[in-house]
Amino acid sequence: MQSQRLLATEYFESLQSGICSALETVDGKERFSEDSWKHDSGGGGRTRIIQNGLVWEKGGVSTSAIQDMLTETLAEKLGVSPQAVFATGVSLVLHPLNPMIPTVHANFRYLELENGDFWFGGGADLTPYYLFRDDVVHFHRTWKDSCDKHNPAFYPRFKSSCDEYFFLQHRKEARGVGGIFFDYLRGDFKSLFQFVKSCGDSFLPAYLPIAERRKNEPWGDTEREWQLVRRGRYVEFNLVYDRGTLFGMETRGRIESVLMSLPPLVRWTYDHHPDEGSREEELLLTLQSPQTWIS
Amino acid sequence: MQSQRLLATEYFESLQSGICSALETVDGKERFSEDSWKHDSGGGGRTRIIQNGLVWEKGGVSTSAIQDMLTETLAEKLGVSPQAVFATGVSLVLHPLNPMIPTVHANFRYLELENGDFWFGGGADLTPYYLFRDDVVHFHRTWKDSCDKHNPAFYPRFKSSCDEYFFLQHRKEARGVGGIFFDYLRGDFKSLFQFVKSCGDSFLPAYLPIAERRKNEPWGDTEREWQLVRRGRYVEFNLVYDRGTLFGMETRGRIESVLMSLPPLVRWTYDHHPDEGSREEELLLTLQSPQTWIS
Repeated sequence: MQSQRLLATEYFESLQSGICSALETVDGKERFSEDSWKHDSGGGGRTRIIQNGLVWEKGGVSTSAIQDMLTETLAEKLGVSPQAVFATGVSLVLHPLNPMIPTVHANFRYLELENGDFWFGGGADLTPYYLFRDDVVHFHRTWKDSCDKHNPAFYPRFKSSCDEYFFLQHRKEARGVGGIFFDYLRGDFKSLFQFVKSCGDSFLPAYLPIAERRKNEPWGDTEREWQLVRRGRYVEFNLVYDRGTLFGMETRGRIESVLMSLPPLVRWTYDHHPDEGSREEELLLTLQSPQTWIS
Repeated sequence: MQSQRLLATEYFESLQSGICSALETVDGKERFSEDSWKHDSGGGGRTRIIQNGLVWEKGGVSTSAIQDMLTETLAEKLGVSPQAVFATGVSLVLHPLNPMIPTVHANFRYLELENGDFWFGGGADLTPYYLFRDDVVHFHRTWKDSCDKHNPAFYPRFKSSCDEYFFLQHRKEARGVGGIFFDYLRGDFKSLFQFVKSCGDSFLPAYLPIAERRKNEPWGDTEREWQLVRRGRYVEFNLVYDRGTLFGMETRGRIESVLMSLPPLVRWTYDHHPDEGSREEELLLTLQSPQTWIS
């Protein structure tokens, strides 16, 4: 299944390049810099970072293709004996400077065991600081269209998984307004790969129009402070719940690539509450339970 | 053993008051505000917070005395059947504005099971942004003196436990320069309580002289940026490793009291490295392995 590995890896790498170059164009000032790195037990990755841009305060778009042994936990979870695993994927998080542009995360991956089992995983989710209903609907609509082409059951299922996964139990609130999330997607390689490519290719159409449309919205200290406080929740999610982050930390992945998702500047204010009736409160109320964005 | 619970709780509450009032004096501008809260299953706490002071950018000193059922994990760990637990303690974290003053954490607690088993836990550790050897020696010396009065074996043991506990595996570095850390300290109540009181009473003498001596040291953007980046490590430790924080989050403790330890402002810069030969690098090198501060 060397060819499946290659096809997936090549696609993820070309997706990375396409996304980075589009993001640079939107930024207009800063460019991505690249760190290539090797993994101890085989393979490696390339981490591309943009910092202090006009639009992107910090962004990371990373690929990796790694050969390793399954961790004990994962082998147990999968109900298989200890064996080699191949994992390839692309992962990105963008933290815009303007609080009117939502933070976005996306990740697509392909895994293959020595025993021949293989699957895809991935998803994308949006974390706004201010709620623009049209933006959220556009984001969800784009993913729904990608999903529907493949299987009409996918969007409702993956949308629910996303709401479930990106939830901060200790805050009793969602990280953001969701999107799609899927894992252990098994079946015919060709057909699934087609689906994952269609998802990957949907990232820019799903997100860039939102960034373009909000990047010139005015903002000031109030909006910035709210953004910094909300970024604290993003950190809490990634360090406490996010499987990818925790897995990367446990398996001693390249730590700077694992933690590239953390926001550039963050504030924790004790017992912060937005004013009643404010736009900030509107967001919080929306995050308390899963919403139906498109019917 | 109602009297033991009372004695411990009263001590922790009076310690909180003494510490807060001394910290207010040092600050000279801001004062602590207090939130009293109740715990679902019995008891409660009082969380005192100071923010935006001249010396303390953010500080929390909290007490709680709670009656609850043991969590399954803890019952299993202790090898006991599910039963009621009483826990009382004081916990504090101070994030100074001036990067020359180290961040400090201390916590002292008393736990008692329904079956009659009881123990003390606690400790204190220092997290500098710049290394002043005299400060670290003074901090350790104060704790050693407290320990030695009770048992000369304590300081070496608790100092090692502290080095072991406050270590970020994924960064391969210590959170700071340590101090003391102890848990499950069982024995004669009177004698152990004497020891814990002597520790609690040592907090101000261990830390305040350092804050006093550094609070007028000059600092600028470089030192501030370094402090913000290092605070990121503090967040990583508390959200990924700290038992108290994770326990508080899992058991749905009052979340703002659990997370009062998080710094006010934090920065994550991708792949940040201090200049060779800089004071910032000196700190990093020191944190790579446990140091002997006093012999």
